[in-house]
Amino acid sequence: MSNLSKSIEGVIKAFKKFPSVGEKSATRFAYFLMKQPKPEVKKLLNAIIDLKQSVNLCSRCNNLDDSDPCSICANPKRDDRTLCVVETPIDLRAIERTSKYNGKYFILHGVLSPLDGITPDDLNINNLVRLVKKHSVKEVILATNPRAQGESTANYIKDRLKSSDVKVSRIAYGIPVGSELEYVDSLSLARSIEGRRKF
Amino acid sequence: MSNLSKSIEGVIKAFKKFPSVGEKSATRFAYFLMKQPKPEVKKLLNAIIDLKQSVNLCSRCNNLDDSDPCSICANPKRDDRTLCVVETPIDLRAIERTSKYNGKYFILHGVLSPLDGITPDDLNINNLVRLVKKHSVKEVILATNPRAQGESTANYIKDRLKSSDVKVSRIAYGIPVGSELEYVDSLSLARSIEGRRKF
Repeated sequence: MSNLSKSIEGVIKAFKKFPSVGEKSATRFAYFLMKQPKPEVKKLLNAIIDLKQSVNLCSRCNNLDDSDPCSICANPKRDDRTLCVVETPIDLRAIERTSKYNGKYFILHGVLSPLDGITPDDLNINNLVRLVKKHSVKEVILATNPRAQGESTANYIKDRLKSSDVKVSRIAYGIPVGSELEYVDSLSLARSIEGRRKF
Repeated sequence: MSNLSKSIEGVIKAFKKFPSVGEKSATRFAYFLMKQPKPEVKKLLNAIIDLKQSVNLCSRCNNLDDSDPCSICANPKRDDRTLCVVETPIDLRAIERTSKYNGKYFILHGVLSPLDGITPDDLNINNLVRLVKKHSVKEVILATNPRAQGESTANYIKDRLKSSDVKVSRIAYGIPVGSELEYVDSLSLARSIEGRRKF
């Protein structure tokens, strides 16, 4: 489409890289930004710059936050003895939204996937085992997604924690098998945390 | 969710203002940007800044482009005697994608909507009538969306052009009634342009 503005094409190209954004959504975003008043667009730009400057990995749980340790790890009201293992920070957000969990987290940033070359080292599972021992964790809740790779990752972690004196549980199948944590409604997700069983 | 990073919340809040973006998509966008390398994010920021700095309204057709007149109006290969009236620049893009139209455009940036206070003045319909006379336009193709307000806008424009010596046509209903131009596949849209009838 040689007849179209280069600046507009540039923004559309950049937005097309976003997850689940195709040509049409990217185009709508570009025209939306064109119509927005400049201060609004500046707010967006500053928010993105701030995000890239301030957000770091928590050295304890791998959460992404402005501070290290992250605000959850640093919160003395949260139970140090319970640790919920999730795949991504988005899954953590989903669990926080249920307001049913008061322990801490460990974020894997992925699942074991030998075909993609993702090994236990990539998921920092040694750090998880160390954390469990260091803080005398009583229970590890495995909240990886109920899919093949999430299951095998959960199984691997269970095996690695066998030597530790810790209860290992798995979130209950209150959530539909084959779905993704971040899309489940808060109530079902809360039920699945309450109904967790020994693993 | 007081336990979550302020920078992340800031970006999520900004993205939630985008069309058809809710909490979950906005969250995915924020985490996507966190994981992107800095040069990639810089590219996005520069593209947006460039968009806000370079893009202006074409004084002739109201298209959004880097230059004035826009590249379509300035293109001598495009037929000056045929004018296609669309609601938005996104609709213009949709028609350009069909490669079946070689005339020029006039963009209304909306539809008549007395309840929302949108009058013929807001759509620059006087300029449209002037343009038709000035360039001795032979045919005006009304390509507003096949919805109530698009229809009444098309009817209004037809009435306003009665005194001009111009053929007024309406895109054919090859496209499903009740849909929106920007979502129609290019083939159906091309058919609806080819099969346009006297209005």
